[in-house]
Amino acid sequence: MKTAAMIQTYPATINLDRELLARVIDTLVTCSQACTACADACLSEEMVADLRRCIRTNLDCADSCATTARILSRHTGYDANITRAHLQACIAACRSCGDECEQHAGMHEHCKVCAEACRACEEACRELLTTIA
Amino acid sequence: MKTAAMIQTYPATINLDRELLARVIDTLVTCSQACTACADACLSEEMVADLRRCIRTNLDCADSCATTARILSRHTGYDANITRAHLQACIAACRSCGDECEQHAGMHEHCKVCAEACRACEEACRELLTTIA
Amino acid sequence: MKTAAMIQTYPATINLDRELLARVIDTLVTCSQACTACADACLSEEMVADLRRCIRTNLDCADSCATTARILSRHTGYDANITRAHLQACIAACRSCGDECEQHAGMHEHCKVCAEACRACEEACRELLTTIA
Amino acid sequence: MKTAAMIQTYPATINLDRELLARVIDTLVTCSQACTACADACLSEEMVADLRRCIRTNLDCADSCATTARILSRHTGYDANITRAHLQACIAACRSCGDECEQHAGMHEHCKVCAEACRACEEACRELLTTIA
Repeated sequence: MKTAAMIQTYPATINLDRELLARVIDTLVTCSQACTACADACLSEEMVADLRRCIRTNLDCADSCATTARILSRHTGYDANITRAHLQACIAACRSCGDECEQHAGMHEHCKVCAEACRACEEACRELLTTIA
Repeated sequence: MKTAAMIQTYPATINLDRELLARVIDTLVTCSQACTACADACLSEEMVADLRRCIRTNLDCADSCATTARILSRHTGYDANITRAHLQACIAACRSCGDECEQHAGMHEHCKVCAEACRACEEACRELLTTIA
Repeated sequence: MKTAAMIQTYPATINLDRELLARVIDTLVTCSQACTACADACLSEEMVADLRRCIRTNLDCADSCATTARILSRHTGYDANITRAHLQACIAACRSCGDECEQHAGMHEHCKVCAEACRACEEACRELLTTIA
Repeated sequence: MKTAAMIQTYPATINLDRELLARVIDTLVTCSQACTACADACLSEEMVADLRRCIRTNLDCADSCATTARILSRHTGYDANITRAHLQACIAACRSCGDECEQHAGMHEHCKVCAEACRACEEACRELLTTIA
Protein backbone atom coordinates (compact mmCIF):
# COMPACT_ATOMS: atom_id res chain seq x y z
CA MET A 1 0.00 0.00 0.00
CA LYS A 2 1.05 3.60 -0.72
CA THR A 3 -1.35 5.04 1.86
CA ALA A 4 1.25 6.45 4.26
CA ALA A 5 3.28 7.90 1.38
CA MET A 6 0.20 9.59 -0.07
CA ILE A 7 -0.82 11.06 3.28
CA GLN A 8 2.70 12.48 3.75
CA THR A 9 2.34 14.41 0.51
CA TYR A 10 -1.09 15.93 1.20
CA PRO A 11 -0.56 19.69 0.78
CA ALA A 12 -2.90 21.04 3.46
CA THR A 13 -3.92 20.40 7.07
CA ILE A 14 -5.28 17.00 8.10
CA ASN A 15 -7.53 17.07 11.16
CA LEU A 16 -6.66 13.54 12.27
CA ASP A 17 -3.39 11.83 13.12
CA ARG A 18 -1.71 10.98 9.81
CA GLU A 19 -0.07 7.77 10.99
CA LEU A 20 -3.22 6.41 12.61
CA LEU A 21 -5.27 7.43 9.58
CA ALA A 22 -2.96 5.55 7.21
CA ARG A 23 -3.14 2.45 9.38
CA VAL A 24 -6.94 2.54 9.55
CA ILE A 25 -7.27 2.99 5.78
CA ASP A 26 -4.97 0.00 5.18
CA THR A 27 -7.01 -2.11 7.58
CA LEU A 28 -10.25 -1.09 5.83
CA VAL A 29 -8.88 -1.90 2.39
CA THR A 30 -7.59 -5.26 3.64
CA CYS A 31 -10.95 -6.09 5.20
CA SER A 32 -12.88 -5.09 2.08
CA GLN A 33 -10.78 -7.40 -0.09
CA ALA A 34 -10.99 -10.27 2.43
CA CYS A 35 -14.79 -9.96 2.58
CA THR A 36 -15.12 -9.97 -1.22
CA ALA A 37 -12.94 -13.09 -1.37
CA CYS A 38 -14.77 -14.77 1.54
CA ALA A 39 -18.17 -14.22 -0.10
CA ASP A 40 -16.83 -15.92 -3.21
CA ALA A 41 -15.16 -18.78 -1.31
CA CYS A 42 -18.41 -19.42 0.60
CA LEU A 43 -20.25 -19.45 -2.73
CA SER A 44 -18.02 -22.32 -3.89
CA GLU A 45 -18.43 -24.42 -0.74
CA GLU A 46 -20.54 -27.58 -1.05
CA MET A 47 -22.62 -26.37 1.90
CA VAL A 48 -23.34 -22.97 0.32
CA ALA A 49 -26.95 -23.14 1.57
CA ASP A 50 -25.65 -22.87 5.15
CA LEU A 51 -23.52 -19.86 4.28
CA ARG A 52 -26.17 -17.54 2.83
CA ARG A 53 -26.09 -15.15 5.76
CA CYS A 54 -22.28 -15.17 5.76
CA ILE A 55 -22.16 -14.29 2.04
CA ARG A 56 -24.63 -11.45 2.48
CA THR A 57 -22.80 -9.97 5.46
CA ASN A 58 -19.52 -10.29 3.58
CA LEU A 59 -20.94 -8.29 0.67
CA ASP A 60 -22.23 -5.54 2.97
CA CYS A 61 -18.95 -5.37 4.86
CA ALA A 62 -16.91 -5.23 1.64
CA ASP A 63 -18.99 -2.24 0.43
CA SER A 64 -18.95 -0.49 3.79
CA CYS A 65 -15.17 -0.80 4.24
CA ALA A 66 -14.51 0.36 0.67
CA THR A 67 -16.63 3.48 1.12
CA THR A 68 -15.14 4.27 4.53
CA ALA A 69 -11.59 3.86 3.15
CA ARG A 70 -12.41 6.38 0.42
CA ILE A 71 -13.94 8.89 2.82
CA LEU A 72 -10.88 8.64 5.12
CA SER A 73 -8.60 9.10 2.09
CA ARG A 74 -10.12 12.56 1.52
CA HIS A 75 -9.04 15.48 3.73
CA THR A 76 -10.18 18.50 1.73
CA GLY A 77 -13.23 20.18 3.30
CA TYR A 78 -13.16 17.77 6.25
CA ASP A 79 -16.52 17.22 7.94
CA ALA A 80 -16.34 15.38 11.27
CA ASN A 81 -20.02 14.39 11.06
CA ILE A 82 -19.50 12.43 7.86
CA THR A 83 -16.35 10.71 9.10
CA ARG A 84 -17.87 9.81 12.48
CA ALA A 85 -21.11 8.40 11.03
CA HIS A 86 -19.29 6.26 8.47
CA LEU A 87 -16.86 4.89 11.05
CA GLN A 88 -19.86 3.91 13.18
CA ALA A 89 -21.59 2.27 10.21
CA CYS A 90 -18.42 0.41 9.31
CA ILE A 91 -18.00 -0.78 12.90
CA ALA A 92 -21.53 -2.23 12.73
CA ALA A 93 -20.75 -4.02 9.46
CA CYS A 94 -17.40 -5.39 10.72
CA ARG A 95 -18.96 -6.50 14.00
CA SER A 96 -21.75 -8.44 12.23
CA CYS A 97 -19.44 -9.92 9.63
CA GLY A 98 -16.80 -10.86 12.22
CA ASP A 99 -19.46 -12.60 14.35
CA GLU A 100 -20.88 -14.44 11.37
CA CYS A 101 -17.52 -15.56 9.95
CA GLU A 102 -16.34 -16.65 13.39
CA GLN A 103 -19.17 -19.17 13.55
CA HIS A 104 -17.77 -20.88 10.45
CA ALA A 105 -14.08 -20.39 11.29
CA GLY A 106 -13.66 -23.94 12.60
CA MET A 107 -14.87 -25.41 9.34
CA HIS A 108 -13.76 -22.89 6.72
CA GLU A 109 -10.29 -21.37 6.79
CA HIS A 110 -11.42 -18.41 4.62
CA CYS A 111 -13.99 -17.51 7.28
CA LYS A 112 -11.25 -17.66 9.91
CA VAL A 113 -8.95 -15.30 7.99
CA CYS A 114 -11.89 -13.01 7.17
CA ALA A 115 -13.08 -12.92 10.79
CA GLU A 116 -9.60 -11.77 11.84
CA ALA A 117 -9.67 -9.02 9.21
CA CYS A 118 -13.11 -7.88 10.43
CA ARG A 119 -12.01 -7.83 14.08
CA ALA A 120 -8.87 -5.85 13.26
CA CYS A 121 -10.92 -3.42 11.18
CA GLU A 122 -13.58 -2.94 13.84
CA GLU A 123 -10.86 -2.22 16.40
CA ALA A 124 -9.00 0.21 14.12
CA CYS A 125 -12.21 2.13 13.35
CA ARG A 126 -13.04 2.32 17.07
CA GLU A 127 -9.55 3.66 17.81
CA LEU A 128 -9.88 6.39 15.18
CA LEU A 129 -13.41 7.22 16.34
CA THR A 130 -12.16 8.06 19.84
CA THR A 131 -9.85 10.73 18.37
CA ILE A 132 -12.67 12.59 16.59
CA ALA A 133 -13.98 15.53 18.56
CA MET B 1 -35.28 1.60 -12.59
CA LYS B 2 -36.28 -2.05 -12.08
CA THR B 3 -36.08 -1.78 -8.29
CA ALA B 4 -39.77 -2.35 -7.54
CA ALA B 5 -39.96 -5.25 -10.01
CA MET B 6 -36.90 -6.91 -8.46
CA ILE B 7 -38.26 -6.53 -4.93
CA GLN B 8 -41.58 -8.10 -6.01
CA THR B 9 -39.72 -11.22 -7.14
CA TYR B 10 -37.60 -11.72 -4.01
CA PRO B 11 -38.37 -15.30 -2.93
CA ALA B 12 -38.27 -14.92 0.87
CA THR B 13 -39.42 -12.58 3.63
CA ILE B 14 -38.40 -8.92 3.60
CA ASN B 15 -38.39 -7.26 7.02
CA LEU B 16 -39.17 -3.80 5.69
CA ASP B 17 -42.03 -2.42 3.61
CA ARG B 18 -41.33 -3.41 -0.01
CA GLU B 19 -42.82 -0.30 -1.57
CA LEU B 20 -41.02 2.11 0.74
CA LEU B 21 -37.79 0.18 0.31
CA ALA B 22 -37.97 0.41 -3.49
CA ARG B 23 -38.63 4.14 -3.29
CA VAL B 24 -35.68 4.71 -0.93
CA ILE B 25 -33.31 2.68 -3.11
CA ASP B 26 -34.33 4.68 -6.19
CA THR B 27 -33.77 7.93 -4.32
CA LEU B 28 -30.32 6.75 -3.18
CA VAL B 29 -29.30 5.72 -6.68
CA THR B 30 -30.54 9.03 -8.07
CA CYS B 31 -28.62 10.98 -5.44
CA SER B 32 -25.43 9.00 -6.00
CA GLN B 33 -25.50 9.75 -9.73
CA ALA B 34 -26.34 13.42 -9.16
CA CYS B 35 -23.43 13.81 -6.73
CA THR B 36 -20.96 12.17 -9.14
CA ALA B 37 -22.14 14.51 -11.89
CA CYS B 38 -22.11 17.57 -9.61
CA ALA B 39 -18.52 16.89 -8.51
CA ASP B 40 -17.52 16.78 -12.17
CA ALA B 41 -19.52 19.88 -13.11
CA CYS B 42 -17.93 21.81 -10.21
CA LEU B 43 -14.52 20.64 -11.44
CA SER B 44 -15.19 22.30 -14.80
CA GLU B 45 -16.37 25.62 -13.36
CA GLU B 46 -14.03 28.59 -13.76
CA MET B 47 -14.25 29.17 -10.02
CA VAL B 48 -13.28 25.58 -9.15
CA ALA B 49 -11.10 26.84 -6.28
CA ASP B 50 -14.24 28.01 -4.46
CA LEU B 51 -15.92 24.65 -4.96
CA ARG B 52 -13.31 22.34 -3.36
CA ARG B 53 -15.45 21.54 -0.34
CA CYS B 54 -18.48 20.97 -2.57
CA ILE B 55 -16.55 18.52 -4.77
CA ARG B 56 -15.27 16.61 -1.76
CA THR B 57 -18.68 16.34 -0.13
CA ASN B 58 -20.18 15.28 -3.47
CA LEU B 59 -17.67 12.43 -3.73
CA ASP B 60 -18.38 11.24 -0.18
CA CYS B 61 -22.14 11.43 -0.71
CA ALA B 62 -21.91 9.54 -4.03
CA ASP B 63 -20.02 6.70 -2.31
CA SER B 64 -22.26 6.64 0.74
CA CYS B 65 -25.50 6.54 -1.27
CA ALA B 66 -24.16 3.82 -3.57
CA THR B 67 -23.19 1.59 -0.64
CA THR B 68 -26.49 2.20 1.17
CA ALA B 69 -28.46 1.40 -2.00
CA ARG B 70 -26.62 -1.92 -2.26
CA ILE B 71 -27.17 -2.81 1.38
CA LEU B 72 -30.90 -2.03 1.07
CA SER B 73 -31.05 -4.15 -2.11
CA ARG B 74 -30.05 -7.22 -0.08
CA HIS B 75 -32.64 -8.95 2.10
CA THR B 76 -31.03 -12.34 2.77
CA GLY B 77 -29.78 -12.64 6.36
CA TYR B 78 -31.17 -9.21 7.25
CA ASP B 79 -29.34 -7.46 10.09
CA ALA B 80 -31.14 -4.36 11.43
CA ASN B 81 -27.92 -3.02 12.99
CA ILE B 82 -26.17 -2.80 9.62
CA THR B 83 -29.16 -1.22 7.87
CA ARG B 84 -29.76 1.31 10.65
CA ALA B 85 -26.12 2.42 10.91
CA HIS B 86 -25.76 2.86 7.16
CA LEU B 87 -28.99 4.84 6.88
CA GLN B 88 -27.66 7.13 9.64
CA ALA B 89 -24.30 7.51 7.88
CA CYS B 90 -26.03 8.25 4.60
CA ILE B 91 -28.26 10.84 6.26
CA ALA B 92 -25.11 12.59 7.55
CA ALA B 93 -23.56 12.58 4.07
CA CYS B 94 -26.76 13.82 2.37
CA ARG B 95 -27.25 16.53 5.00
CA SER B 96 -23.70 17.88 4.54
CA CYS B 97 -23.80 17.65 0.77
CA GLY B 98 -27.26 19.22 0.59
CA ASP B 99 -26.11 22.12 2.81
CA GLU B 100 -22.98 22.64 0.77
CA CYS B 101 -24.67 22.46 -2.64
CA GLU B 102 -27.44 24.79 -1.46
CA GLN B 103 -24.88 27.52 -0.85
CA HIS B 104 -23.93 27.42 -4.53
CA ALA B 105 -27.44 26.78 -5.88
CA GLY B 106 -28.01 30.41 -6.83
CA MET B 107 -24.92 30.45 -8.99
CA HIS B 108 -24.66 26.89 -10.30
CA GLU B 109 -27.72 25.06 -11.59
CA HIS B 110 -26.01 21.66 -11.09
CA CYS B 111 -25.63 22.42 -7.39
CA LYS B 112 -29.33 23.31 -7.24
CA VAL B 113 -30.42 20.03 -8.82
CA CYS B 114 -27.95 18.09 -6.65
CA ALA B 115 -29.10 19.82 -3.46
CA GLU B 116 -32.67 18.74 -4.25
CA ALA B 117 -31.51 15.15 -4.77
CA CYS B 118 -29.65 15.23 -1.43
CA ARG B 119 -32.66 16.66 0.45
CA ALA B 120 -34.99 14.05 -1.06
CA CYS B 121 -32.51 11.30 -0.20
CA GLU B 122 -32.00 12.47 3.37
CA GLU B 123 -35.77 12.57 3.86
CA ALA B 124 -36.31 9.12 2.32
CA CYS B 125 -33.61 7.59 4.53
CA ARG B 126 -35.12 9.22 7.62
CA GLU B 127 -38.54 7.83 6.71
CA LEU B 128 -37.19 4.31 6.34
CA LEU B 129 -35.17 4.64 9.53
CA THR B 130 -38.32 5.28 11.58
CA THR B 131 -39.73 1.92 10.44
CA ILE B 132 -36.74 -0.09 11.69
CA ALA B 133 -37.30 -1.57 15.11
CA MET C 1 -33.17 9.82 -12.05
CA LYS C 2 -31.75 13.36 -12.39
CA THR C 3 -29.21 12.30 -15.02
CA ALA C 4 -30.62 14.34 -17.92
CA ALA C 5 -31.06 17.40 -15.71
CA MET C 6 -27.47 17.14 -14.46
CA ILE C 7 -26.09 16.77 -17.99
CA GLN C 8 -28.04 19.86 -19.10
CA THR C 9 -26.26 21.92 -16.44
CA TYR C 10 -22.71 20.79 -17.18
CA PRO C 11 -20.79 24.04 -17.80
CA ALA C 12 -18.36 22.92 -20.52
CA THR C 13 -18.26 20.91 -23.73
CA ILE C 14 -19.36 17.27 -23.73
CA ASN C 15 -17.83 15.17 -26.48
CA LEU C 16 -20.76 12.77 -26.74
CA ASP C 17 -24.45 13.27 -27.42
CA ARG C 18 -26.00 14.51 -24.16
CA GLU C 19 -29.35 12.78 -24.63
CA LEU C 20 -27.85 9.43 -25.56
CA LEU C 21 -25.35 9.72 -22.72
CA ALA C 22 -28.10 10.33 -20.15
CA ARG C 23 -30.05 7.34 -21.45
CA VAL C 24 -27.00 5.04 -21.28
CA ILE C 25 -26.15 6.15 -17.74
CA ASP C 26 -29.72 5.47 -16.60
CA THR C 27 -29.61 2.02 -18.19
CA LEU C 28 -26.29 1.26 -16.48
CA VAL C 29 -27.56 2.37 -13.08
CA THR C 30 -30.74 0.32 -13.55
CA CYS C 31 -28.73 -2.77 -14.53
CA SER C 32 -26.33 -2.38 -11.61
CA GLN C 33 -29.20 -2.29 -9.12
CA ALA C 34 -31.01 -5.21 -10.80
CA CYS C 35 -27.83 -7.34 -10.68
CA THR C 36 -27.25 -6.57 -6.98
CA ALA C 37 -30.85 -7.55 -6.24
CA CYS C 38 -30.70 -10.66 -8.45
CA ALA C 39 -27.56 -11.91 -6.70
CA ASP C 40 -29.36 -11.58 -3.39
CA ALA C 41 -32.57 -13.18 -4.64
CA CYS C 42 -30.59 -16.13 -6.02
CA LEU C 43 -28.87 -16.43 -2.64
CA SER C 44 -32.28 -16.93 -0.99
CA GLU C 45 -33.51 -19.55 -3.45
CA GLU C 46 -33.75 -23.13 -2.17
CA MET C 47 -31.65 -24.25 -5.13
CA VAL C 48 -28.86 -21.74 -4.42
CA ALA C 49 -26.24 -24.38 -5.25
CA ASP C 50 -27.41 -24.31 -8.88
CA LEU C 51 -27.18 -20.53 -9.01
CA ARG C 52 -23.54 -20.02 -7.96
CA ARG C 53 -22.42 -18.93 -11.40
CA CYS C 54 -25.41 -16.62 -11.73
CA ILE C 55 -24.64 -14.94 -8.39
CA ARG C 56 -21.00 -14.43 -9.32
CA THR C 57 -21.79 -12.97 -12.72
CA ASN C 58 -24.42 -10.72 -11.12
CA LEU C 59 -21.83 -9.36 -8.72
CA ASP C 60 -19.33 -8.67 -11.51
CA CYS C 61 -21.98 -7.02 -13.67
CA ALA C 62 -23.20 -4.84 -10.79
CA ASP C 63 -19.65 -3.56 -10.20
CA SER C 64 -18.89 -3.08 -13.88
CA CYS C 65 -22.10 -1.13 -14.58
CA ALA C 66 -21.60 1.06 -11.50
CA THR C 67 -18.06 2.00 -12.55
CA THR C 68 -19.06 2.62 -16.16
CA ALA C 69 -21.98 4.83 -15.05
CA ARG C 70 -19.55 6.92 -12.99
CA ILE C 71 -17.04 7.26 -15.81
CA LEU C 72 -19.80 8.35 -18.22
CA SER C 73 -21.04 10.87 -15.64
CA ARG C 74 -17.69 12.67 -15.83
CA HIS C 75 -16.95 14.95 -18.80
CA THR C 76 -14.03 17.04 -17.55
CA GLY C 77 -10.75 16.03 -19.21
CA TYR C 78 -12.54 13.52 -21.44
CA ASP C 79 -10.37 10.62 -22.62
CA ALA C 80 -11.94 8.50 -25.38
CA ASN C 81 -9.63 5.56 -24.60
CA ILE C 82 -10.94 5.21 -21.06
CA THR C 83 -14.59 5.53 -22.10
CA ARG C 84 -14.23 3.07 -24.98
CA ALA C 85 -12.43 0.41 -22.96
CA HIS C 86 -14.93 0.57 -20.10
CA LEU C 87 -17.90 0.37 -22.44
CA GLN C 88 -16.32 -2.74 -23.97
CA ALA C 89 -15.70 -4.28 -20.54
CA CYS C 90 -19.25 -3.49 -19.48
CA ILE C 91 -20.63 -5.06 -22.67
CA ALA C 92 -18.72 -8.26 -21.81
CA ALA C 93 -20.14 -8.29 -18.29
CA CYS C 94 -23.71 -7.59 -19.45
CA ARG C 95 -23.46 -10.21 -22.17
CA SER C 96 -22.31 -12.92 -19.73
CA CYS C 97 -24.79 -11.95 -17.05
CA GLY C 98 -27.66 -11.71 -19.54
CA ASP C 99 -26.83 -15.18 -20.91
CA GLU C 100 -26.58 -16.67 -17.43
CA CYS C 101 -29.78 -15.07 -16.09
CA GLU C 102 -31.66 -16.07 -19.23
CA GLN C 103 -31.00 -19.72 -18.47
CA HIS C 104 -32.87 -19.35 -15.18
CA ALA C 105 -35.55 -16.95 -16.46
CA GLY C 106 -38.16 -19.67 -16.85
CA MET C 107 -37.81 -20.69 -13.22
CA HIS C 108 -36.92 -17.46 -11.45
CA GLU C 109 -38.74 -14.23 -12.21
CA HIS C 110 -35.85 -12.14 -10.78
CA CYS C 111 -33.50 -13.71 -13.34
CA LYS C 112 -35.98 -12.82 -16.08
CA VAL C 113 -36.17 -9.16 -15.04
CA CYS C 114 -32.40 -9.02 -14.57
CA ALA C 115 -31.72 -10.62 -17.98
CA GLU C 116 -33.85 -7.90 -19.59
CA ALA C 117 -31.89 -5.20 -17.75
CA CYS C 118 -28.60 -6.77 -18.92
CA ARG C 119 -29.76 -6.99 -22.55
CA ALA C 120 -30.95 -3.37 -22.53
CA CYS C 121 -27.67 -2.27 -20.96
CA GLU C 122 -25.51 -4.21 -23.41
CA GLU C 123 -27.45 -2.66 -26.30
CA ALA C 124 -27.23 0.87 -24.89
CA CYS C 125 -23.45 0.54 -24.36
CA ARG C 126 -23.01 -0.76 -27.92
CA GLU C 127 -25.01 2.17 -29.28
CA LEU C 128 -22.85 4.70 -27.42
CA LEU C 129 -19.68 2.87 -28.44
CA THR C 130 -20.45 3.36 -32.13
CA THR C 131 -20.50 7.14 -31.61
CA ILE C 132 -17.00 7.29 -30.12
CA ALA C 133 -14.35 8.21 -32.64
CA MET D 1 -3.28 -7.32 2.81
CA LYS D 2 -4.80 -10.79 3.35
CA THR D 3 -5.13 -11.44 -0.39
CA ALA D 4 -2.64 -14.32 -0.64
CA ALA D 5 -4.04 -15.96 2.50
CA MET D 6 -7.59 -15.75 1.16
CA ILE D 7 -6.60 -17.19 -2.22
CA GLN D 8 -4.88 -20.11 -0.47
CA THR D 9 -8.14 -21.03 1.25
CA TYR D 10 -10.38 -20.91 -1.84
CA PRO D 11 -12.06 -24.34 -1.90
CA ALA D 12 -12.25 -24.96 -5.67
CA THR D 13 -10.16 -24.63 -8.81
CA ILE D 14 -8.72 -21.25 -9.81
CA ASN D 15 -8.03 -20.87 -13.52
CA LEU D 16 -5.19 -18.41 -13.05
CA ASP D 17 -1.91 -18.58 -11.16
CA ARG D 18 -2.74 -17.97 -7.48
CA GLU D 19 0.48 -16.14 -6.63
CA LEU D 20 0.33 -13.84 -9.64
CA LEU D 21 -3.36 -13.20 -9.03
CA ALA D 22 -2.73 -12.17 -5.41
CA ARG D 23 0.02 -9.82 -6.50
CA VAL D 24 -2.13 -8.19 -9.18
CA ILE D 25 -5.06 -7.72 -6.77
CA ASP D 26 -2.74 -6.06 -4.23
CA THR D 27 -1.39 -3.75 -6.92
CA LEU D 28 -4.91 -2.83 -8.02
CA VAL D 29 -6.03 -2.08 -4.48
CA THR D 30 -2.91 0.01 -3.88
CA CYS D 31 -3.46 1.96 -7.09
CA SER D 32 -7.14 2.56 -6.31
CA GLN D 33 -6.31 4.05 -2.91
CA ALA D 34 -3.44 6.14 -4.32
CA CYS D 35 -5.72 7.58 -7.02
CA THR D 36 -8.45 8.46 -4.51
CA ALA D 37 -5.84 10.21 -2.35
CA CYS D 38 -4.21 11.94 -5.34
CA ALA D 39 -7.55 13.34 -6.53
CA ASP D 40 -8.07 14.81 -3.08
CA ALA D 41 -4.52 16.15 -2.78
CA CYS D 42 -4.85 17.83 -6.21
CA LEU D 43 -8.14 19.34 -5.03
CA SER D 44 -6.29 21.04 -2.17
CA GLU D 45 -3.48 22.45 -4.30
CA GLU D 46 -3.49 26.20 -4.87
CA MET D 47 -3.28 25.54 -8.61
CA VAL D 48 -6.29 23.22 -8.62
CA ALA D 49 -7.52 24.77 -11.89
CA ASP D 50 -4.48 23.27 -13.66
CA LEU D 51 -5.18 19.84 -12.17
CA ARG D 52 -8.78 19.30 -13.35
CA ARG D 53 -7.85 16.63 -15.85
CA CYS D 54 -5.61 14.90 -13.29
CA ILE D 55 -8.43 14.81 -10.73
CA ARG D 56 -10.88 13.39 -13.23
CA THR D 57 -8.50 10.70 -14.44
CA ASN D 58 -7.67 9.83 -10.83
CA LEU D 59 -11.36 9.30 -10.07
CA ASP D 60 -11.84 7.07 -13.12
CA CYS D 61 -8.72 5.05 -12.32
CA ALA D 62 -9.76 4.62 -8.67
CA ASP D 63 -13.13 3.20 -9.76
CA SER D 64 -11.66 1.01 -12.49
CA CYS D 65 -9.00 -0.54 -10.23
CA ALA D 66 -11.52 -1.15 -7.44
CA THR D 67 -13.88 -2.98 -9.78
CA THR D 68 -11.09 -5.00 -11.38
CA ALA D 69 -9.75 -6.00 -7.95
CA ARG D 70 -13.20 -7.29 -7.01
CA ILE D 71 -13.62 -9.24 -10.24
CA LEU D 72 -10.19 -10.85 -9.80
CA SER D 73 -11.09 -11.71 -6.19
CA ARG D 74 -13.93 -13.92 -7.45
CA HIS D 75 -13.15 -17.35 -8.88
CA THR D 76 -16.53 -19.09 -8.79
CA GLY D 77 -18.03 -19.46 -12.28
CA TYR D 78 -14.93 -17.96 -13.88
CA ASP D 79 -15.54 -16.27 -17.23
CA ALA D 80 -12.36 -15.39 -19.16
CA ASN D 81 -14.21 -12.81 -21.29
CA ILE D 82 -15.15 -10.73 -18.26
CA THR D 83 -11.68 -10.91 -16.73
CA ARG D 84 -9.92 -10.09 -20.00
CA ALA D 85 -12.13 -7.11 -20.85
CA HIS D 86 -11.80 -5.60 -17.39
CA LEU D 87 -8.04 -6.00 -17.34
CA GLN D 88 -7.94 -4.20 -20.70
CA ALA D 89 -10.18 -1.41 -19.40
CA CYS D 90 -8.07 -1.07 -16.27
CA ILE D 91 -4.88 -0.91 -18.34
CA ALA D 92 -6.41 1.99 -20.31
CA ALA D 93 -7.32 3.82 -17.09
CA CYS D 94 -3.89 3.23 -15.49
CA ARG D 95 -2.11 4.28 -18.67
CA SER D 96 -4.03 7.59 -18.89
CA CYS D 97 -3.75 8.32 -15.20
CA GLY D 98 -0.04 7.44 -15.12
CA ASP D 99 0.62 9.75 -18.10
CA GLU D 100 -1.36 12.58 -16.53
CA CYS D 101 0.18 12.27 -13.06
CA GLU D 102 3.66 12.02 -14.54
CA GLN D 103 3.26 15.49 -16.05
CA HIS D 104 2.78 16.92 -12.57
CA ALA D 105 5.28 14.65 -10.80
CA GLY D 106 8.03 17.28 -10.77
CA MET D 107 5.80 19.73 -8.96
CA HIS D 108 3.55 17.54 -6.82
CA GLU D 109 4.95 14.64 -4.84
CA HIS D 110 1.49 13.00 -4.60
CA CYS D 111 1.34 12.86 -8.40
CA LYS D 112 4.78 11.24 -8.44
CA VAL D 113 3.76 8.52 -5.98
CA CYS D 114 0.45 8.02 -7.78
CA ALA D 115 2.13 7.80 -11.20
CA GLU D 116 4.35 5.01 -9.84
CA ALA D 117 1.29 3.16 -8.53
CA CYS D 118 -0.42 3.50 -11.93
CA ARG D 119 2.65 2.26 -13.83
CA ALA D 120 3.03 -0.74 -11.51
CA CYS D 121 -0.68 -1.51 -11.85
CA GLU D 122 -0.69 -1.23 -15.64
CA GLU D 123 2.29 -3.59 -15.79
CA ALA D 124 0.76 -6.11 -13.37
CA CYS D 125 -2.51 -6.17 -15.35
CA ARG D 126 -0.60 -6.67 -18.60
CA GLU D 127 1.34 -9.57 -17.08
CA LEU D 128 -1.85 -11.28 -15.93
CA LEU D 129 -3.53 -10.61 -19.27
CA THR D 130 -0.83 -12.59 -21.12
CA THR D 131 -1.67 -15.68 -19.04
CA ILE D 132 -5.36 -15.67 -19.99
CA ALA D 133 -6.17 -18.00 -22.85
